[in-house]
Amino acid sequence: MDPQHHQPPELRQVLLLCPPYIFSIHEHDFSTRFHMLKAYDSPLPTHDFLHAHAQSVEVVLCSGTVPITADIIRDLPALRLIVSAATGVNHIDMAECGRRGITVTNAGDRYSDDVADAGVGLLIDVMRRITSGDRFVRGGTWPASRGYPLGSKLGGKRVGVVGLGNIGSRVATRLEALGCKVSYTSRRIKPSTPFTFYPNVLQLASDSDAIVLCCPLTKDTRHMIDKRVMTALGKKGVIVNVSRGALINEAELVKCLVEGEIAGVGLDAFENEPNVPKELFGLDNVVLLPHSSGFTKESFYDVAQVLIGNLEAFFAGKPLLTPVANDF
Amino acid sequence: MDPQHHQPPELRQVLLLCPPYIFSIHEHDFSTRFHMLKAYDSPLPTHDFLHAHAQSVEVVLCSGTVPITADIIRDLPALRLIVSAATGVNHIDMAECGRRGITVTNAGDRYSDDVADAGVGLLIDVMRRITSGDRFVRGGTWPASRGYPLGSKLGGKRVGVVGLGNIGSRVATRLEALGCKVSYTSRRIKPSTPFTFYPNVLQLASDSDAIVLCCPLTKDTRHMIDKRVMTALGKKGVIVNVSRGALINEAELVKCLVEGEIAGVGLDAFENEPNVPKELFGLDNVVLLPHSSGFTKESFYDVAQVLIGNLEAFFAGKPLLTPVANDF
Repeated sequence: MDPQHHQPPELRQVLLLCPPYIFSIHEHDFSTRFHMLKAYDSPLPTHDFLHAHAQSVEVVLCSGTVPITADIIRDLPALRLIVSAATGVNHIDMAECGRRGITVTNAGDRYSDDVADAGVGLLIDVMRRITSGDRFVRGGTWPASRGYPLGSKLGGKRVGVVGLGNIGSRVATRLEALGCKVSYTSRRIKPSTPFTFYPNVLQLASDSDAIVLCCPLTKDTRHMIDKRVMTALGKKGVIVNVSRGALINEAELVKCLVEGEIAGVGLDAFENEPNVPKELFGLDNVVLLPHSSGFTKESFYDVAQVLIGNLEAFFAGKPLLTPVANDF
Repeated sequence: MDPQHHQPPELRQVLLLCPPYIFSIHEHDFSTRFHMLKAYDSPLPTHDFLHAHAQSVEVVLCSGTVPITADIIRDLPALRLIVSAATGVNHIDMAECGRRGITVTNAGDRYSDDVADAGVGLLIDVMRRITSGDRFVRGGTWPASRGYPLGSKLGGKRVGVVGLGNIGSRVATRLEALGCKVSYTSRRIKPSTPFTFYPNVLQLASDSDAIVLCCPLTKDTRHMIDKRVMTALGKKGVIVNVSRGALINEAELVKCLVEGEIAGVGLDAFENEPNVPKELFGLDNVVLLPHSSGFTKESFYDVAQVLIGNLEAFFAGKPLLTPVANDF
């Protein structure tokens, strides 16, 4: 065997169940620092692979797309740390982590600016009909048809931000620059912000022309945007979701869109992604993104540094960069 | 003849060559205040229609889509005012107006916020691949293909605004909130703004990651964005145009896009609109709007009030609301 291709023994082991997109781009940075145990490269079924490494795996590196279930966690008795490349941790069984004393780190705020930009981009897109305008021009019908449908002005609109954390506060700043009247609902009131607080999403929606979802998915927020909230938002209302699909009752959303109960949506996340309800494909007041609101070359680089930083801190017994408080 | 359908004699005459979109939406507001002479409703050819009303027509109401040529102006010896629903006046022969002492009014700043929103929306769209992401999801290939191409972060990018007037200054404010480093070129330096001034567009492009065109089309600005400027902007550079198509040498733009000499464009205006170069329809790094960046229900209402305000002021011998300085 060529000694150059043999992992030096001093590299510490990091389990990778599937390759996060970010890992495939920055693989070199990881592979020179850690011994990456790639479950997806093994001919063994995942359970057998985990079993084979059960005693040695202390760390798992994961993305937001593959669930880290209680079963997987139980297969890894030596597991002490889960390093996730995502911001939200709803794909990780946090209760099991809590029981086992396993720490979880996330991407911190490294995606926040990009997600906020995409959220605002989606709002402009839906209200100003940019994506549908592009479709209209590419369809070649502009010369024949005057009177492209008018959009809605952003300035002066009441926009409610759901969750005023890392992302929501950045969305709010951008909306202010667009002349929107910003209010919010959040687990806790944020006295340091100038925005109006609403105690719940139903009241926020009642007083808003649009809402932007920026909160984590938990058992409390699952399906928080349902028929009632959409009805409260009203026929001229717009919803943007740059968080998690299951915040919205998707079946009710599709029904409300088809029946004109709300004006439009911009969605970066879906309940059962990458599967998207086919009914949305024919609608012109809908803008759909493949869960890419945080995805830029720059954020991927920044997040890769956070992942490496967390791994190095863990192996050096130093404080982690972005631990997630486990109050699940 | 039913006297109810006879125009009351006190209504003053306003000539309309073709129906501006805005007029068709707010027709009632105009028709109750003025006697609208609709050339497009007449069986006569335009020249004959103008000749028939040559001695009485003092005012023309027009949009930005139909040129008011020297020929038309010469057909109307009593003409004293052209009330345009557009912001730019490049469709009006301003030199002939100057010679004849005809005043021109435009939409003032009533479209400015909406155009600025659309300009920023187009920039986010191109850099963050929103429109192409929507196409990707609607195409139904998301489940099969991981790794949707990464976009570029807006934060920290150097964005040059070309023309820091009503629209450009609003674009600049929005870009600042997105964390961009804003600089500009303009006919005159604007000492009251915090943004870096460049004496010309070539130097601005050399130091920018993206440029946003917000200046009027004049003989000096026609084709100001040519191969040289695009090369200076570079392969990662983005161009957004929410002004007039002929600011850009479109043939050179298409060539640069096809050959990858610039990264992408967001266009609301075209040299020969509503005709758009077909080569653009197949490109994924291009977002195309049907010259609708200023078009919202709200701006149309506001502009209708400006048009009516200018007409009423003229007939009452009062100062016009939005006269255009004729330095053409």
